[in-house]
Amino acid sequence: MKIELICTGEEVLCGQIVDTNAAWLAQYLWDQGLALHRKNTIGDRREDLTALFLERSTEADLVIVNGGLGPTTDDLSTEAMAMALQEPLVLCEVWQKKMDDFFAQRQIAVPACNTKQAMLPQSARMIDNPYGTACGFAVKLNRAWFFFTPGVPREFKPMIKEQLLPFVKQNFTQSISNILKKFLVFGHGESFLQEKLSAIQNDESISLGYRAFSPYIELKLIGPQSAAKQLSAFEHTMTQQLGDMIVGQECTSLAEVVHQQLKQHHKTLSLAESCTGGLLASQLIRFAGSSAYFKEGVIAYDAHAKKERLGVRPHILQEEGEVSLMTAAQMAEGIRRLSQSDYALSTTGIAGPDGGNEDKPVGTVCIALATPTHSYIQKVYFKNRSRDAVREFSAAVAFDMLRRILQNKEPCTTYSSIEQVATQVMNSSDIFAV
Amino acid sequence: MKIELICTGEEVLCGQIVDTNAAWLAQYLWDQGLALHRKNTIGDRREDLTALFLERSTEADLVIVNGGLGPTTDDLSTEAMAMALQEPLVLCEVWQKKMDDFFAQRQIAVPACNTKQAMLPQSARMIDNPYGTACGFAVKLNRAWFFFTPGVPREFKPMIKEQLLPFVKQNFTQSISNILKKFLVFGHGESFLQEKLSAIQNDESISLGYRAFSPYIELKLIGPQSAAKQLSAFEHTMTQQLGDMIVGQECTSLAEVVHQQLKQHHKTLSLAESCTGGLLASQLIRFAGSSAYFKEGVIAYDAHAKKERLGVRPHILQEEGEVSLMTAAQMAEGIRRLSQSDYALSTTGIAGPDGGNEDKPVGTVCIALATPTHSYIQKVYFKNRSRDAVREFSAAVAFDMLRRILQNKEPCTTYSSIEQVATQVMNSSDIFAV
Repeated sequence: MKIELICTGEEVLCGQIVDTNAAWLAQYLWDQGLALHRKNTIGDRREDLTALFLERSTEADLVIVNGGLGPTTDDLSTEAMAMALQEPLVLCEVWQKKMDDFFAQRQIAVPACNTKQAMLPQSARMIDNPYGTACGFAVKLNRAWFFFTPGVPREFKPMIKEQLLPFVKQNFTQSISNILKKFLVFGHGESFLQEKLSAIQNDESISLGYRAFSPYIELKLIGPQSAAKQLSAFEHTMTQQLGDMIVGQECTSLAEVVHQQLKQHHKTLSLAESCTGGLLASQLIRFAGSSAYFKEGVIAYDAHAKKERLGVRPHILQEEGEVSLMTAAQMAEGIRRLSQSDYALSTTGIAGPDGGNEDKPVGTVCIALATPTHSYIQKVYFKNRSRDAVREFSAAVAFDMLRRILQNKEPCTTYSSIEQVATQVMNSSDIFAV
Repeated sequence: MKIELICTGEEVLCGQIVDTNAAWLAQYLWDQGLALHRKNTIGDRREDLTALFLERSTEADLVIVNGGLGPTTDDLSTEAMAMALQEPLVLCEVWQKKMDDFFAQRQIAVPACNTKQAMLPQSARMIDNPYGTACGFAVKLNRAWFFFTPGVPREFKPMIKEQLLPFVKQNFTQSISNILKKFLVFGHGESFLQEKLSAIQNDESISLGYRAFSPYIELKLIGPQSAAKQLSAFEHTMTQQLGDMIVGQECTSLAEVVHQQLKQHHKTLSLAESCTGGLLASQLIRFAGSSAYFKEGVIAYDAHAKKERLGVRPHILQEEGEVSLMTAAQMAEGIRRLSQSDYALSTTGIAGPDGGNEDKPVGTVCIALATPTHSYIQKVYFKNRSRDAVREFSAAVAFDMLRRILQNKEPCTTYSSIEQVATQVMNSSDIFAV
């Protein structure tokens, strides 16, 4: 069964919109044992859309169309399909009634342009949308079923789950069943990993995929249910080879890993961020349930805040500078004591593009982890990285230190793709005794 | 001239990777007066890739291929193109030498698998990549030029700028010249805007596009250079119609707007975040130069931090609760006084999915702006929104309050798509006198 996706919209012409629906859909279908075969993205020109519908209608079994069902004049998916079908648009009274109710409930007059959303090609089956004013619809053209969905993610996702899946089960008998296992690696490059793994004997039916999404690399092990045993053997050898380079499984960030672990271990955390400026906090707080462990954070971006809020000693700032092991150590232990948390993380560095010097070039960052007994501090250097990348990598190194201590490992480790300049371990009681 | 993009990679099969290169490229090409006509994304199966290359080679003039040039076995773009061309892969000695130097400089042995990256189809022109080990290349197949680029953004982007653009100028004489103007709208829905704008007389050659990217809607005005006068007239009427709903031009977030304005006005800012948890800080600090105005931030996620760090009065927390106008007011004025900044923003709310009650359902957020003389506070309700959306919308409302005061407008305004529950204005000196 050949499933394809068509995303419509001006983004192909003018850019700037990142298409998250497509990524979500591919992942979701995969989890259901269905594979997306191809994705086409195209602008808002009606003729182009019509041509594309005709083209794909002879190649695919199921084409999911996303977007272009809105009330505005540049929403053209429905019209374009009517042209491809050579059918008129007719009023779908069921949907018109639903829209009237929708607006009545919200005590808003129905905007005139919304009527357009109840006009469907003659042969269309309407697909319900309980979350918005754009109904979906399904039509058959040549070999393919076309399934039209709204672009708004909170309308699109439930429609796929609640309507598309039953539709597929009803209209297609063939089903695919795959095993997918995902491993998150941090701090090592793609070539480095491939060298490590090249010796493993690979069953033909199993494939190993690499995907870099900064600052991580994701390894994907994919194979059919029938090769479950071979896949499991491959996984065993692979995880032994990589050992601690794998920082998580079935997850997409180190923030997610420490979020789970802090909850599990009933430990609390506080943060003192300079160059990451709220990134650590923001990455944790986006998970529901973070209040179980998150005590507080201070974004101490200037020297004044580092002194006044965190108690960093003035002579340390003067003699060793804002970006130094001791400043990071005092920031972390400072917020840990203030908030009475089990752990604290701190970052202070030069994210760029300006502010570097010969001694401390752009990309130099000091990161500390404070625990009730010891503090662990390291200075790392992210060479030739953008401001965003320096901040992202710094956050990941910090979270990895926390992950490691929660797994009873030494917090500071080396990464083949990150330059470690210095590390230090201190007793907590010594941090402010300098 | 018909330009297309092909993105390769497992993401079509297993999802989860969001394709930012495509969005960046489309935007970049547009700014050069070139339009991207179509985008195809396809998995890492060689036969699929070969078939797609052949298919597009008769339709497009220029096909930019992104990804699949890495050293690992699932990087198959080069091989697939050699098959489409029916040509052997041959060693590109220039590139082999470059790679040897690349690794020598870094004092790393050349990984065996990297040799693959110097093998190109026989008729290929090598394209230099000063930032990594994957060179690009260009080949002609049927009607189209194919231009292969690496997937890593920091290698991809310079290659497009430094190599593709001269390549296009050299190989294609036809050029397109468009005017594109972008307007950022916050707090109003697409239908609402369309109703407002439907009466404006529209010159045929000018098109108005709507694009929702939560929490914003972007309006795009597009037309040929030859219609510059009509476009300007349309813009004038449109901006008059929408007035203050337009929160920015040629920008993509309110954070970007206030970042510019704070620098321009030489004003300083501090933050006290609860439910947004570092999102405000992070959105500002990602811009270089934010140290000019950003003093400090406190992420006061629990009641203890609100009291101890920001001085929120215990009886306020007890009687009015953590999510209340007075708590927000004391948070903002608290951090403003501590950091001696001109302005401060605070947020406190229930982002969900749990923690709501009848009085304060999930989505209830109090947001305050403290200035040297007054504090402005509002309680808003984001109904049926996800945790991420509540946090994103809260950050945008907070930034909009700051934007408005910097433009000498009342900080609290109403938005047709956001429910405003209450607003309050207080003298700064009264904030803690309760």
